[in-house]
Amino acid sequence: MKDIQGGVCAPKGFKAAGVNADIKGKHENRNDLAAIVSDTLCTSVATYTQNKVKGAPLKITKKHLKDGHAQAIICNSGNANTCNANGEEIATQTCDLLAQELGIKPEDVLVASTGVIGQPMTIDPFKNHMHELASKLKYENSDEAAHAIMTTDTVKKEYACEFMIGDQVCHIGAIAKGSGMIHPNMATMLAFVTSDVAISKELLEAMVHDVVNDTFNMVSVDGDTSTNDMLIVMCNGLAENDKIVIKDHHYQAMKDALYHICEELSKGIAKDGEGATKLLTSQVQNARTLYDAKTTAKSVITSTLFKAAMFGRDANWGRILCAIGYAPNDVDITKVEVSLSSKAGSILVCEKGAGVAFDEEEALKILSEDEITIDIDLHDGDYSATAWGCDLTYDYVKINGEYRT
Amino acid sequence: MKDIQGGVCAPKGFKAAGVNADIKGKHENRNDLAAIVSDTLCTSVATYTQNKVKGAPLKITKKHLKDGHAQAIICNSGNANTCNANGEEIATQTCDLLAQELGIKPEDVLVASTGVIGQPMTIDPFKNHMHELASKLKYENSDEAAHAIMTTDTVKKEYACEFMIGDQVCHIGAIAKGSGMIHPNMATMLAFVTSDVAISKELLEAMVHDVVNDTFNMVSVDGDTSTNDMLIVMCNGLAENDKIVIKDHHYQAMKDALYHICEELSKGIAKDGEGATKLLTSQVQNARTLYDAKTTAKSVITSTLFKAAMFGRDANWGRILCAIGYAPNDVDITKVEVSLSSKAGSILVCEKGAGVAFDEEEALKILSEDEITIDIDLHDGDYSATAWGCDLTYDYVKINGEYRT
Repeated sequence: MKDIQGGVCAPKGFKAAGVNADIKGKHENRNDLAAIVSDTLCTSVATYTQNKVKGAPLKITKKHLKDGHAQAIICNSGNANTCNANGEEIATQTCDLLAQELGIKPEDVLVASTGVIGQPMTIDPFKNHMHELASKLKYENSDEAAHAIMTTDTVKKEYACEFMIGDQVCHIGAIAKGSGMIHPNMATMLAFVTSDVAISKELLEAMVHDVVNDTFNMVSVDGDTSTNDMLIVMCNGLAENDKIVIKDHHYQAMKDALYHICEELSKGIAKDGEGATKLLTSQVQNARTLYDAKTTAKSVITSTLFKAAMFGRDANWGRILCAIGYAPNDVDITKVEVSLSSKAGSILVCEKGAGVAFDEEEALKILSEDEITIDIDLHDGDYSATAWGCDLTYDYVKINGEYRT
Repeated sequence: MKDIQGGVCAPKGFKAAGVNADIKGKHENRNDLAAIVSDTLCTSVATYTQNKVKGAPLKITKKHLKDGHAQAIICNSGNANTCNANGEEIATQTCDLLAQELGIKPEDVLVASTGVIGQPMTIDPFKNHMHELASKLKYENSDEAAHAIMTTDTVKKEYACEFMIGDQVCHIGAIAKGSGMIHPNMATMLAFVTSDVAISKELLEAMVHDVVNDTFNMVSVDGDTSTNDMLIVMCNGLAENDKIVIKDHHYQAMKDALYHICEELSKGIAKDGEGATKLLTSQVQNARTLYDAKTTAKSVITSTLFKAAMFGRDANWGRILCAIGYAPNDVDITKVEVSLSSKAGSILVCEKGAGVAFDEEEALKILSEDEITIDIDLHDGDYSATAWGCDLTYDYVKINGEYRT
């Protein structure tokens, strides 16, 4: 497997583009409407937010995905199209407009939105710019699409890799947006994944479920589960591999590649969390159960106090113990060992649930890096889990105190 | 019932004091060791944190409270005495030292600590200053005790009230500390409540359980459940009322007073949350179950994004809906109505789960006040609940990025 350029257009037969549709009506100088389209119909799977409030686009996408097939995705930023009276109507019409331009069925178009919840919205910006968008969909401009779906993101999230299935070169590509309201549960922030692998819908579903649980569902920026989280995977089969229909080594090869892409997206989203200056990786090992490992890793990465301490480069490991202590599991605190590390080194701060003397200068040096790993050894079994997060900063407060204005 | 002065010394027969024991060893100019003592043995009840990591003082207090009686409380700030190898030894010796000075049994002394977790600690500061502290315990200095238990608190929390049981004038007084790591689950931050009412241990337990569930357990500052949360209630019976042994109107009179004191402490703790500029009160009504009401109220008050919006005086009600949506319950979102109010007025922002047009200028005026109420009507039943919290500010990040240094 190797990383390559090209994002969602790296797999064969995928085009992408973005335009400025002025969704907010504020004449901002940025693209806010993106589309991805495949030359042929794709086996497609999606996972959705578990929030009871669901954006209108999610409902329409779910409807359109009932048959397990899709050919295009359209996504706007600037308005979440959520808690609006006419939301489903707008989402449906958006699919209709793109379908008409591309000459495909409206049910084969999936739709997503991100931005402020509950802002009034009309179909006009979509109407006015759909032809322009469609006319650009003969190009492979993943970069443009990746930028158009950003909200408070500061960098685009775009990844692609190449791997072999038998003798066939296969590809997976992806774009995503993250930043705030990030604490996925079941599904994720917005992530669109394309592939040219041929695979059955059933196996793709199983694979996406497993991979999302270990990647996107282990990311937390602020503990808020968005109403619009969605991950879509589209596979058009143009790599011409023997179609994957059983969980053999070909299935595993694709799963490894999908995991790699989703892990990179998850880390990218955590590192670019609103206001973040640091990527925090919480690695739990030797847990009694997988549940213990996951809940412990996530509790630490979610602790507001710990996140603020990391911003302050403060090796306040007591807050890590505290967060392990209130995780919903039965971890034996008296066995817990904690180390902090970065490329500047590694330092043991806690053993058997109690502090050990350590060099504060060295700790400060380690915590001054922009990627910090918290290693938590529970000394109680064989299970491990990883979660990703970021520090809590002045800028998070600034961004979210002023978001709508 | 009327509010009075005097804090924990308002009830008959209670003394309190604070001294500077230099617990941190940094020669700071503030008191950090407090004690409360009753002239006679008290019926006593405590509730504790549900964090699996428990401060050493909690374990010793639990042991000393097995017989349901106590006569004194000793509490230090500046070090949580948690995750220290010799923690229980220090907590035990602290009780011994005070008991010896006061001529009471060590098992009748309860102990609490607050501050940084996992900092090495010795018995020396307690040894060196216990005589000084005990010698001051002939005075009724609740104010001094209230100040000595503060950490990042900016104002002391001290309340007292007077009420009648039959023909007897009775009193309840309290001091508390709050500020950070506040998201109690079962028990609370540190709160010490004194009363001169005569009541059986069984009924006092039932009353404290009910009142704490509706007050302290509905407060959230940052979602972090501390390792040292504890509430202690001591009743010495010196009011000479007929001892309360059944749930009659006398029981109810005392419960009302205790609820009032605990509600005031809860609001005081929320309003003085680390870095907070606003008290947020989330009032849910017409829920199908009490569980729905409580989880909804708490989810809103806990949302990092909503808290940042309140700091920014931004009527971003979509974040309220989002937080209602991810609360662990089955609330019907399509019935939800939300209003925002303060002493500057009230404004409807959401009806039937969707936005309604409102005057942004008026909303800004309402949200510029320092006490904001979020009224959430679920239109689905008869249950209601209230939760208290605060906004998320630059200062929260500052305080917690620099806490230990």
